[in-house]
Amino acid sequence: MTAWDINPGGDNDIVISSRIRLARNILGKVMPTFMQEEQAKEVIQSIHEAILYSNSAIAHEFELIEMDKISSLERQVLVEKHLISPDLGKSKIGAVLIQQGEQVSIMINEEDHLRIQCILPGFQLNKVWEIANKIDDLLEETIPFSFHEKWGYLTACPTNIGTGMRASVMVHLPCLVLTGQINSVIQAIGKLGITIRGIYGEGTEFIGDLFQISNQITLGSSEKDIISNLHSVVKEILKRERQIRMNMKEYNPINLQDKIYRSYGILKYARILSSDECMKLLSYVRLGIDLGYIQDIDMDVINNLMTNIQTGMLQKNYNRRMDERERDYIRTQYIREKIEK
Amino acid sequence: MTAWDINPGGDNDIVISSRIRLARNILGKVMPTFMQEEQAKEVIQSIHEAILYSNSAIAHEFELIEMDKISSLERQVLVEKHLISPDLGKSKIGAVLIQQGEQVSIMINEEDHLRIQCILPGFQLNKVWEIANKIDDLLEETIPFSFHEKWGYLTACPTNIGTGMRASVMVHLPCLVLTGQINSVIQAIGKLGITIRGIYGEGTEFIGDLFQISNQITLGSSEKDIISNLHSVVKEILKRERQIRMNMKEYNPINLQDKIYRSYGILKYARILSSDECMKLLSYVRLGIDLGYIQDIDMDVINNLMTNIQTGMLQKNYNRRMDERERDYIRTQYIREKIEK
Repeated sequence: MTAWDINPGGDNDIVISSRIRLARNILGKVMPTFMQEEQAKEVIQSIHEAILYSNSAIAHEFELIEMDKISSLERQVLVEKHLISPDLGKSKIGAVLIQQGEQVSIMINEEDHLRIQCILPGFQLNKVWEIANKIDDLLEETIPFSFHEKWGYLTACPTNIGTGMRASVMVHLPCLVLTGQINSVIQAIGKLGITIRGIYGEGTEFIGDLFQISNQITLGSSEKDIISNLHSVVKEILKRERQIRMNMKEYNPINLQDKIYRSYGILKYARILSSDECMKLLSYVRLGIDLGYIQDIDMDVINNLMTNIQTGMLQKNYNRRMDERERDYIRTQYIREKIEK
Repeated sequence: MTAWDINPGGDNDIVISSRIRLARNILGKVMPTFMQEEQAKEVIQSIHEAILYSNSAIAHEFELIEMDKISSLERQVLVEKHLISPDLGKSKIGAVLIQQGEQVSIMINEEDHLRIQCILPGFQLNKVWEIANKIDDLLEETIPFSFHEKWGYLTACPTNIGTGMRASVMVHLPCLVLTGQINSVIQAIGKLGITIRGIYGEGTEFIGDLFQISNQITLGSSEKDIISNLHSVVKEILKRERQIRMNMKEYNPINLQDKIYRSYGILKYARILSSDECMKLLSYVRLGIDLGYIQDIDMDVINNLMTNIQTGMLQKNYNRRMDERERDYIRTQYIREKIEK
């Protein structure tokens, strides 16, 4: 059971998950980009020990996974579960500490020495911040972080300096996309220091009408202010998406129903589905459930499918490597199984 | 119950229907293109009476329908049922005699004074020829046809001179289309005096992988030879279509299944369907039934849908005029009703 399997956060009609990521670096250590293997190992060990030998109740809940010791499939699965970034998945000196339940992961030797990350389902930014902050405090007990009195936490990339925090909310905006209004939303929120990214973070694609909305600015505001600003912007976006959903349902229900039911029909009947097409279909089915058009599937089933039909997750679930052709076929089997339940 | 509702002819996996059409003209009468209204009425009356006052058992089975006395919707329905040609549907001086059961229709004042037509489900050219021939004989008892000792029956268009006969077979060739082999088939049969047309005859579109295969030459061969030639050519085409179906089923089943099941899924779930898209979907579902992939629908249901989802038929079934938007929506309702039965 991962954080994605249950969805107790609020605004579940649109919000998939909330996430906090804190970038930290260790005083006096070479930055990951310039590291030798030996130096990387030392950093991994010191962070692992900081957790392991801490006085915390969760000290033994973390598992260390080193990137060079796992297969590319296992790395891909970690990316798809949002436990590591695509970049860390490609790193040879990187590692990750993952807490039981997979709500907290600590990436090691990504761009920065540490990236503490907490992810929870639904709209609960304060909760994820609280958890990430505790882990940060725990590590700071023994690890000296690079910190400047005036600038705050020092990071590899200047865009992260200050709080080192990226707060983000994964939202599902099919109707903003359908009406093309998403573009004006992206432009408008840019002016508020907020940015929209693809589902695996910076530079990744928009898939299945899913978007990560996050703070662009890390410097000059407190963590609380950043979170509170992001929270209100997301609230505004939710309002707009809901308004369009209701308008379409009232004034153009047949076009909307057609899109939703077709997607459902294809999802149930297709025998070849790429993960991209699948995400598009799941997006509309998810909308159909929210609008009450589709009543025989639970929203959680769709949320889980959105994670589990991904290339790596699928192969992990079936416990074997598959080529694209087989995956696209097995994906449809998997979906039918889950939907018919 | 129309001729389309039952399908006792052979080769039903591919052949939808068989048809004979005989072009005849009345000696000494002005050709329809140059007719005054009065002259047209006379021709209609004389043909109607030739049937009505004949000694045949079927004399009273015919109903006369004059084009200028019915609505455009009713005319469209007759075209969609293949009881009249699109050209007759547009004529102001035309009429049609339709036999109960709708197997035989006699178009009056189309391009020629008479076009005797018989249509039956499945592959049974000899049977339709026999029926059309009897009607021809019956009419010839009282009506003097334009006939030349050397050239045979004289017709408005020289391409019909001689036998005045067009024999045609409506076939469903989704796999020849899917593999692109249909083009070489069209080229090859042209050399054998055979042609392929769209489902409403000359110059009409290919829809839903349905084709009318018919003789091009009416002169210099007997009716029996023309029919026998057409019969063997169609047999060859059936062989090729079946071969590809079997090959695809054996060597590439998943791609084929995907096309078929997707079509089925969309057909069952869509809320807006144009008649063109609908025909494409029905075509694949029909193939799926033949290949045994789809087992919960009867082939007859699909054959009926191919007729009844047409624009005119649909409005007739619902007993009212509808705009395109409403039709496309009602069409999906109608399909769900029929499929769920």
